[in-house]
Amino acid sequence: MTLTDPVAATCPVPRNETEVVLLGHGSGGALMAELLAEVITPRLGFDGPLEDAGLLDTGSPEIVVSTDSFVVTPRFFPGGDIGSLAVHGTVNDVAMRGARPLALALSYIVEEGLPLADLERITDSVARAARAAGVRIIAGDTKVVGRGAADGIYLTTTGIGVRLPGAEVGAAGGRPGDVVLLSGPIGLHGTAILAARGDLGFDGDLTSDSRPLNRLVETMIRAAGPAVHALRDPTRGGLASALNELAEASSVSIEITDADLPVPQPVASFCELLGLDPLHVANEGCLVALVAPEHADRVLTAMRALPEGCRARVLGRVAAGPPGRVTARTLVGSSRIVDMLVGEQLPRIC
Amino acid sequence: MTLTDPVAATCPVPRNETEVVLLGHGSGGALMAELLAEVITPRLGFDGPLEDAGLLDTGSPEIVVSTDSFVVTPRFFPGGDIGSLAVHGTVNDVAMRGARPLALALSYIVEEGLPLADLERITDSVARAARAAGVRIIAGDTKVVGRGAADGIYLTTTGIGVRLPGAEVGAAGGRPGDVVLLSGPIGLHGTAILAARGDLGFDGDLTSDSRPLNRLVETMIRAAGPAVHALRDPTRGGLASALNELAEASSVSIEITDADLPVPQPVASFCELLGLDPLHVANEGCLVALVAPEHADRVLTAMRALPEGCRARVLGRVAAGPPGRVTARTLVGSSRIVDMLVGEQLPRIC
Repeated sequence: MTLTDPVAATCPVPRNETEVVLLGHGSGGALMAELLAEVITPRLGFDGPLEDAGLLDTGSPEIVVSTDSFVVTPRFFPGGDIGSLAVHGTVNDVAMRGARPLALALSYIVEEGLPLADLERITDSVARAARAAGVRIIAGDTKVVGRGAADGIYLTTTGIGVRLPGAEVGAAGGRPGDVVLLSGPIGLHGTAILAARGDLGFDGDLTSDSRPLNRLVETMIRAAGPAVHALRDPTRGGLASALNELAEASSVSIEITDADLPVPQPVASFCELLGLDPLHVANEGCLVALVAPEHADRVLTAMRALPEGCRARVLGRVAAGPPGRVTARTLVGSSRIVDMLVGEQLPRIC
Repeated sequence: MTLTDPVAATCPVPRNETEVVLLGHGSGGALMAELLAEVITPRLGFDGPLEDAGLLDTGSPEIVVSTDSFVVTPRFFPGGDIGSLAVHGTVNDVAMRGARPLALALSYIVEEGLPLADLERITDSVARAARAAGVRIIAGDTKVVGRGAADGIYLTTTGIGVRLPGAEVGAAGGRPGDVVLLSGPIGLHGTAILAARGDLGFDGDLTSDSRPLNRLVETMIRAAGPAVHALRDPTRGGLASALNELAEASSVSIEITDADLPVPQPVASFCELLGLDPLHVANEGCLVALVAPEHADRVLTAMRALPEGCRARVLGRVAAGPPGRVTARTLVGSSRIVDMLVGEQLPRIC
């Protein structure tokens, strides 16, 4: 195993004594997938595809649970803050299992010295975002650590929801022939966060797309029920990672078209300057869906009727194979492999 | 408001610009209660007594949810580690609502540079503790922050359970005449952690009492159903805070007897040397219960049949008033007020 240190593979020192966690392990990309697959999920008894949310079988209705920690820096940014992001991120992960989010549990880790005004502003933002998404905060915790043992404030939100009637959404649900739908433009969240850090000298025509997607999902399920095969919100690791994960879990290949990628001009300019691929940049307000072809039009129409889906479009197709491969047809007609993000691109983006 | 700075009350500077979060705000004591009451809970729309876990009304069975972040230092200590503690703490909070914990969501915040061996050991410990408590890990997340933005690793666990048939447990359930039961000795967790920090020159005859209490709770509810009026595990803030919270929420007073307080000799010596009150030291493996007097004996017998309750005992009585007051009858026959912990005593104990 060569999780971090190529030297470890060639010398007889056990991996455990030399290897450490790297920033890239939290990237949402290939290194993170390796950490999960080799270190974490086998120990916890997870098998099968990693979903955005887990199922708790207590009978009917089926309970869906998702958890995420939020460590974004800066904590206030154009389009949101760590509080609203922590609500949207988890509400959306629950929704991606075809569920209606009902409640959130909220836990703060606060660094000693955080201005109380920041804590108040963030808590107000949590409350506002929860109300807007239609979820209640039903449990909470606050821990304080000494100066230097955190960076201001971290939030962990856990969402609990119930499966929508007729929903049969799962990462493994994609089938050859499915249409790939995308609900909105990509790259806005990650670039807005980077720009907001201020050390790049950009000023802000970039605003995060952070928003709740649960109503959009309900609309889609209402329109087509089990014909919505898979849903994912392309957060850490960007659209490229989300498509790769779906292709992998469903044992299909996915073909998209570069010309259909909705990359807003400010995002494109920003990415070009920094050498980023917009496909690897985190989003917090759009989703990708694999939908049975005969229902794709109906789903698309339903999505476009909502503000958060008004720019929904067809992005590509699911094909039979090779399993796990994602390709993009380029503007000149050739085809390129769309890889998962490797290593670290944008730490602490969510 | 004088959350932190008495000067702020007398000069016209708005509180928000001068006040910051202090370590004591995370203590589980009076300062924390103030932070919750003034800054957090009104914003999130909580009203009524703060419980260890919240209820999600999705019909029957009733779903109980609790969340906690764990920031304990050191991360490995006699009797457990941050992984087992994160399972026990949340399993126990769910159980304190009279529920059977079924599943956990687990989120890591990892500091870059954490040895992978530590991550593996902690994950193994999470898995082992979850198996032993009979809960499944159904959702997870891993975030990595840069060096200096955390202290090794923090865990947030969210527990989901279902109310036990016949359980009507709540912090506000205490009634005059109730018997106060305590399931085991106090002070072991907090003193074990402090001793394990090593900077006090103590060596270790102190071992944390960290353990799951869900089976103990099931046994108690099976024995007496709704006659178990209130349950709480005295973690941060210790037994004193737990009793004060129950007395406050139930609008009753609670009278305990010093002679009945089970303080192990090593805990007593340690506390005496450091000037700590064992009533303020955190526990992770005992619970306090308010039980209808006619059922107290049966509950006590049931508790004592389990290893985790074998040292259960009667600690005192609930009286009609004054509401919120906790008193202890001393060894010389007088009575003293048992206050909540004020400020910070033992940071990062859980």
